Amino acid sequence: MNRNPAASSRIAWTKWLPILAWGRAYDSRQFGGDLLAAGIVTLMLIPQSLAYAMLAGLPPQAGLYASMLPLLAYAVFGSSRTLAVGPAAVTSLMTATAIGQLAVPGTPAYWEAALVLALLSGGILLLMGLLRLGWLANFLGHPVIAGFIAASGLLIAVGQARHVLGIHAQGDTLPVLLPALWRQLPAVNWPTLALGVGALVFLWWSRQRLGRRLRAWGWRPGLAEVLGRSAPVLAIAVTTLAVWAWDLQAQGVQVVGAVPQGLPPLAWPSWNPSLWSALAMPALLLSLVGFAESVSVGQTLAARRRQRVEPDQELVALGASNVAAAFSGGLPVTGGFSRSVVNFDAGARTPAAGVYTALGIALAAVLLTPLLHYLPQATLAATVIVAVLSLVDVAVFRRIWEYSRFDFSVAAATLLLTLLAGVETGLVAGVVLALALHLYRSSRPHVAEVGQVPGTEHFRNVRRHTVTTCDAVLGLRVDESLYFANARYLEDCINDAVARRQALKHVVLQCSAINNIDASALASLEMIEVRLRDAGICLHLSEVKGPVMDRLANTAFLRCLSGQVFLTHYQAIAALAPGGLSQ
Amino acid sequence: MNRNPAASSRIAWTKWLPILAWGRAYDSRQFGGDLLAAGIVTLMLIPQSLAYAMLAGLPPQAGLYASMLPLLAYAVFGSSRTLAVGPAAVTSLMTATAIGQLAVPGTPAYWEAALVLALLSGGILLLMGLLRLGWLANFLGHPVIAGFIAASGLLIAVGQARHVLGIHAQGDTLPVLLPALWRQLPAVNWPTLALGVGALVFLWWSRQRLGRRLRAWGWRPGLAEVLGRSAPVLAIAVTTLAVWAWDLQAQGVQVVGAVPQGLPPLAWPSWNPSLWSALAMPALLLSLVGFAESVSVGQTLAARRRQRVEPDQELVALGASNVAAAFSGGLPVTGGFSRSVVNFDAGARTPAAGVYTALGIALAAVLLTPLLHYLPQATLAATVIVAVLSLVDVAVFRRIWEYSRFDFSVAAATLLLTLLAGVETGLVAGVVLALALHLYRSSRPHVAEVGQVPGTEHFRNVRRHTVTTCDAVLGLRVDESLYFANARYLEDCINDAVARRQALKHVVLQCSAINNIDASALASLEMIEVRLRDAGICLHLSEVKGPVMDRLANTAFLRCLSGQVFLTHYQAIAALAPGGLSQ
Repeated sequence: MNRNPAASSRIAWTKWLPILAWGRAYDSRQFGGDLLAAGIVTLMLIPQSLAYAMLAGLPPQAGLYASMLPLLAYAVFGSSRTLAVGPAAVTSLMTATAIGQLAVPGTPAYWEAALVLALLSGGILLLMGLLRLGWLANFLGHPVIAGFIAASGLLIAVGQARHVLGIHAQGDTLPVLLPALWRQLPAVNWPTLALGVGALVFLWWSRQRLGRRLRAWGWRPGLAEVLGRSAPVLAIAVTTLAVWAWDLQAQGVQVVGAVPQGLPPLAWPSWNPSLWSALAMPALLLSLVGFAESVSVGQTLAARRRQRVEPDQELVALGASNVAAAFSGGLPVTGGFSRSVVNFDAGARTPAAGVYTALGIALAAVLLTPLLHYLPQATLAATVIVAVLSLVDVAVFRRIWEYSRFDFSVAAATLLLTLLAGVETGLVAGVVLALALHLYRSSRPHVAEVGQVPGTEHFRNVRRHTVTTCDAVLGLRVDESLYFANARYLEDCINDAVARRQALKHVVLQCSAINNIDASALASLEMIEVRLRDAGICLHLSEVKGPVMDRLANTAFLRCLSGQVFLTHYQAIAALAPGGLSQ
Repeated sequence: MNRNPAASSRIAWTKWLPILAWGRAYDSRQFGGDLLAAGIVTLMLIPQSLAYAMLAGLPPQAGLYASMLPLLAYAVFGSSRTLAVGPAAVTSLMTATAIGQLAVPGTPAYWEAALVLALLSGGILLLMGLLRLGWLANFLGHPVIAGFIAASGLLIAVGQARHVLGIHAQGDTLPVLLPALWRQLPAVNWPTLALGVGALVFLWWSRQRLGRRLRAWGWRPGLAEVLGRSAPVLAIAVTTLAVWAWDLQAQGVQVVGAVPQGLPPLAWPSWNPSLWSALAMPALLLSLVGFAESVSVGQTLAARRRQRVEPDQELVALGASNVAAAFSGGLPVTGGFSRSVVNFDAGARTPAAGVYTALGIALAAVLLTPLLHYLPQATLAATVIVAVLSLVDVAVFRRIWEYSRFDFSVAAATLLLTLLAGVETGLVAGVVLALALHLYRSSRPHVAEVGQVPGTEHFRNVRRHTVTTCDAVLGLRVDESLYFANARYLEDCINDAVARRQALKHVVLQCSAINNIDASALASLEMIEVRLRDAGICLHLSEVKGPVMDRLANTAFLRCLSGQVFLTHYQAIAALAPGGLSQ
């Protein structure tokens, strides 16, 4: 134990500011790894940040701005060594949905609302971190996330199709989007379609094959992988040149246009209270989804090097990143999967890599924005579509279906409701359904009548095994903790069992699987005991766990129990059925 | 197995119409017991039904009407042999609260709304019964019911105080009721107060002492008990005579007044859609509370004679009773505790006792109503107050406090919110809080590192016992089923444990307390396995339960598991740490 007060206060500080821990030991070897990784991530992040800003309905520079200060904030507060934050697909979709109800994309009011959303989300994340409420994200169970992410991917892909087709079609749900696309289809712009489909095919091929092909040609696997990942940069360069060279803009190809050169503007987000209250619920959902995605990526990467991420500290770091995005003209950010993996694989050792990435993006914002003028929106849409279609993972649904119909129904309902009614409705309905089904399932626990395996001290379910029982003694094993939702079910089971057995004298509850008994279940046990006593039957317990016994010890139930508490079920049967059991 | 189709269809019919089962075997001995019990219950039910109608804000005859046809309906459908249905304290309070927001007490619209509420509640109960949704009532856990019933008792007692004081003061919550009473206090009517306090003192004394005193004087215990229970009839007779003899009505004593002589009017309730939608939520809450109270009384009495009540059939029977009340000018009804106990103790053998009680009430409605003209409202209020104050049970709260602070906070919040914000808000908030706390509690399961008890094959928590462990093998026991709310917590625990142990080679999860693993937990286990493998550590399982193993058997998780599944934890340690464990 370290009892030096100065040292322990330093430990407390490094808990809240992990930069103090890794910054102190920073050396040139780490610097080399971080700088190389930052270079590669910057190359990857420029098209991604432009594309996700477009997906969120914001001007392209918002994406660049969201990839500067938020990265610095994460470097100071983050507990993961390699997580790369910035705009991401699902959070950008949620941003577009939330703000689309309040303002028209492209207007200053729309951008302002995005900043308020980032600020609210940052505030919620910070608050959750300070109150250590990271466990709230647990309610996004695996089936809910699987359904939600797949539906989001489909919604994004369908929504971005308009840029590839060169038409106008808006909507937050499939029933709105699909007819809108269909109606506009005659107005398709052929040069845009050619560029977009070309980019799509190239990006799809390079994602599936390029890395493997390069390795087959004798390139180093690491370098081959990195080149494969930078295919979007190549697609952007080629299509931008094509637009510029052949003046395709004049033929109706939509381009990014003038992007202001320079660093992000620092400004307070709007204090409009009605805007704040309208965005509170979307901000909460955005925070939970962003946090769940980010912490899962961070933990996966940290485990590979036996490092740790602190979920509650991650809340603080993501909160700080979103607040930074809000004050510097960005949009809501989170830890992204693909860029974090690239960061890790390219050899990033510390969050300083994020600082260098931010500097790289700043350099690009100052120097390269004029080059982006002729970048066609179709190319950006193609990078988004290829990225999000990998989120639609049919195998996950098949696995959930094979494992549990219950869980599959949750995943399917979340998927369908998200597609048909929008991201917020789908997510909330999925969480509520998962809770309801969990409660339903645990409200009917498995209760088995047990009998003795002949010649042993073991007891097993009479329906599964050949065991001996006795008319005067009934042994029941409950395979679930007892709480309010299943307490009365146990009453029913015992009433049932007793009504069918006129010779019964003793009921023994084998409590080996009961991890907890709440006050409702205690009341039910008291009720069971009273009813059994009225019927001339004694209630006994066996194999009660230590913590459960500790709590029962001082209760009226145990003081008034007509029967006894046995250490093992065998002792109970030996004491209550001395004549032995019959088959 | 009975394979006679006629016989098995008869069994199906008697399941839905229990009257077919007991009616077939009805004989003169049962008739005698039922008739005596019916006589005593009728004597008790006349004042109760008048008083609860007044509590609900309805004319007194509504209470009598609700004690006729509903009893016949229950006799046909009910699965309890001795439950006595009719108007009850808490349901009448909930009726008054629900309708008080829509109409003025005493008006025809008010009574009409009460009939719609009974119809809706009956429909909901019938539907729940047909869909076998009785388990929904489980969500009213013991702490929620304890807080809600105590608060309802207090609200009723304070609300009825105005009749004892002879003043006017309305309100659904204490913050409205208490100031209203205080403002009207100067207008107190002294003759009313004298009658009311006299009745209160007499009823209180007789409830506590009369039965015991009569037994001390040598009366038969059963008869003494019944006479003690009929004290309200004596109080009514004496105070009615007093009002009539001394013409107290002229001095401002409020009396019941003219009660129409005759049988209930049969009529369709109102089909006003806005009334239906306004009453839907109150009807649902009323149904759940009424069902929970009724089924608990029914099961307690049935168990004494080793009989059964079917919760889902009780839903049908209560539903039919409420529909009957709605079509015959009554108010919502439920199985009452005190009258069912009297029915049982007086020797009722079958639901036919309910039919005779209904006939007794009908006789009273035809013949006795003129005698009720001078009955003072203060006496009725006194019977209600004495009855409901027994619901306020401080000992229950003390027991819950001693057993669990969590559960106590639910009971206290339900109590306070019901008193301060009304019955509906209090009940809903209590249920939501209980759910949230349950999920919070199970989201952080007890995870223990286990070591071997030297010289045995047993493994125990290293923090509680002196056990041996080994640096290369970590044994963890999780004391909870794994599901979405706690899956990620297990990931954190294992990440944590691994990050602290550089020599670790094997992690063994002892699954003896895991009754279920849902798809989220399976995904977490896969994630844990991948992360451990990346860090060069094998994951093993031990003591997996049969049903859990059945489901895991076909999963990719088990096929790809880097380690093994051991039958016992001892076998796992013997195989993985052949060098033995050290202390």
